[in-house]
Amino acid sequence: MSIYDVRISRIREWMKERSVEVVLVTSPPNVFYLTGFDCHPHERFMALCLTADGGAALFVPTLEKEEAEKSGFPHIVTVSDTDDPMAKVREVVGDGPFGQLAVEKQHLTVARYEQLQTVFGTNPSVAAEDLLLGMRLQKDEAEVAIMKKAAEIADRSVEAAVRAIAVGKTEAEIVAVIESTMKSLGASGPSFSTIVLAGDRSALPHGTPGNRKIQAGDFVLLDLGAVYEGYCSDITRTVVVGEPSDEQVLIYEAVLAANLAGIAATKAGLPAKVVDAAARQTIEGFGYGEYFTHRVGHGLGIEIHEFPSMHGNNEAQLVTGMVFTIEPGIYVPGLGGVRIEDDVLVTADGVEVLTSYPKELQILPAE
Amino acid sequence: MSIYDVRISRIREWMKERSVEVVLVTSPPNVFYLTGFDCHPHERFMALCLTADGGAALFVPTLEKEEAEKSGFPHIVTVSDTDDPMAKVREVVGDGPFGQLAVEKQHLTVARYEQLQTVFGTNPSVAAEDLLLGMRLQKDEAEVAIMKKAAEIADRSVEAAVRAIAVGKTEAEIVAVIESTMKSLGASGPSFSTIVLAGDRSALPHGTPGNRKIQAGDFVLLDLGAVYEGYCSDITRTVVVGEPSDEQVLIYEAVLAANLAGIAATKAGLPAKVVDAAARQTIEGFGYGEYFTHRVGHGLGIEIHEFPSMHGNNEAQLVTGMVFTIEPGIYVPGLGGVRIEDDVLVTADGVEVLTSYPKELQILPAE
Repeated sequence: MSIYDVRISRIREWMKERSVEVVLVTSPPNVFYLTGFDCHPHERFMALCLTADGGAALFVPTLEKEEAEKSGFPHIVTVSDTDDPMAKVREVVGDGPFGQLAVEKQHLTVARYEQLQTVFGTNPSVAAEDLLLGMRLQKDEAEVAIMKKAAEIADRSVEAAVRAIAVGKTEAEIVAVIESTMKSLGASGPSFSTIVLAGDRSALPHGTPGNRKIQAGDFVLLDLGAVYEGYCSDITRTVVVGEPSDEQVLIYEAVLAANLAGIAATKAGLPAKVVDAAARQTIEGFGYGEYFTHRVGHGLGIEIHEFPSMHGNNEAQLVTGMVFTIEPGIYVPGLGGVRIEDDVLVTADGVEVLTSYPKELQILPAE
Repeated sequence: MSIYDVRISRIREWMKERSVEVVLVTSPPNVFYLTGFDCHPHERFMALCLTADGGAALFVPTLEKEEAEKSGFPHIVTVSDTDDPMAKVREVVGDGPFGQLAVEKQHLTVARYEQLQTVFGTNPSVAAEDLLLGMRLQKDEAEVAIMKKAAEIADRSVEAAVRAIAVGKTEAEIVAVIESTMKSLGASGPSFSTIVLAGDRSALPHGTPGNRKIQAGDFVLLDLGAVYEGYCSDITRTVVVGEPSDEQVLIYEAVLAANLAGIAATKAGLPAKVVDAAARQTIEGFGYGEYFTHRVGHGLGIEIHEFPSMHGNNEAQLVTGMVFTIEPGIYVPGLGGVRIEDDVLVTADGVEVLTSYPKELQILPAE
């Protein structure tokens, strides 16, 4: 039984328990999780359809047929650009009447849902994601092994970036070094648009790298991740170029202490919110509470942002197998920002930090 | 009056005509089109909300506040990770009762829609995208100028890639050359995951580049695009390494003839389907009809795939200002594939081809 068979059989159990007759899985990450088929069909229709009688069909755009067949999924139905996708679904599923339907309410659009209702009737539907995202919350051994490799690629890409940083180089040049390093190490690409921000621009938590040249006295913030075999890593390190000011050192030490406090607070059985609280209280203790403007982290896996959301109100319990980021930051407009981010795995013993690039303040030469 | 004011005033006219009281624009491309704020908030809530009384508010994640303010939009409301986004919307819009609501049905998820209905009631809603995507169909002068620059960056990235192609290099190495060239030319990034496929892998219309090394006799297919100031380009060229076989030459000539036939058929006032038909009939004439497995092209702009869809059933009229790709291809499993793609603009006189990298078969040295 493949890992995909195991996962699909768990959905079939849930269908029985909840009297669901048809499940339509439409988000690329969940289709990948259940079939191994890694495809982003843009606006085209893609869906895994499971029916109560044991049927399973994977609907893919015609031009993805060969790639879909490589996944080994037994029943693939192609949908061409001129087909009506819902007519194809009706052909495979039959005419009904149908009872309860499960769809991904956080992915399916209102427009597709209205089309679906013309095929399946306007019966009440349930959200399939509670189950799917719940399953994906706990990474199995195979997933953890892949994610460790993705984290290692991120570590080595930071290393290459730090070697490349020099006064006069642009943010965009450092991005190019990072992304080519990742690919040379086997990543299929970055897990999000790589961030390199220098000087006061490092105070923009999600700024876009440009032609700003690195100068003496700059913080240089590197936030990057790699996709490896369909799984994401995500790391942030911040270095300083030339002798730092006292305030730069203080901010850095506050963020590092918060990162370590968050890691130390991570423990199966505790509510997720304790991680944010531990990091936040540390930064507040340094007097920079108002400059830590985002949650401490986010779940990580097939998607760069998935559950658990590591915010200060999340009462959900941490459980073994969860992987998430811990990434406190302080952003002082005009001065700059520091963020230090690791990917961590909740284990039976406590926590394993998957990213391992050193975190002590690195002062790079300014000449 | 800024270009954004002009666009929003057109929506306000539509609201009056259709008796729409609240419009909620949630897709990042449409928010960018209407405000200039270019943001991909992942799972976080972002929306431009327009009300019948003239109100306009841009809801953004807290950590995007500084970037959002740079757009100059007058009323920005931040939504933190612990806020309820719909409660924020209710605060700004007031308590109602509300009549007709317009949402982006092709973007808004069923889950958000259900949440919205708790705020606005379960009144019938209309699709805002018919208007928005219709507006975006015809690029104005400012948009065309940006798209020409995006196309030029794509041309020059192909040029860099062709120079870098050599026996023994991997697909991934060529991708790195392309993406760093783009960024050095001012692109914010690739408009989609860059495709470089060698040998029989070139027969995969959307394959993922890997560590396959380029060999003598390979087709090398390059499909890439750049994002420049928020707008996409998209180009495909295919070269051959070493002396091509007769069949390789025949396939290439068929695709080139189809590309030129598609361009020649493009004319304002004709139905969009004529472009697909012209390219397809050409390839059929060469006897390769069954190997051209996708539509001839797609609209291009803020998104890499937008309207018009250039498929063989699209009866919609071509109008001046439309920009789309013309990208016929022939994919022979085991042998390889060729695709030649240009970005074209429908003009009053006929058509202007925005991409200009040469299209004659290039035979690169195999030693």
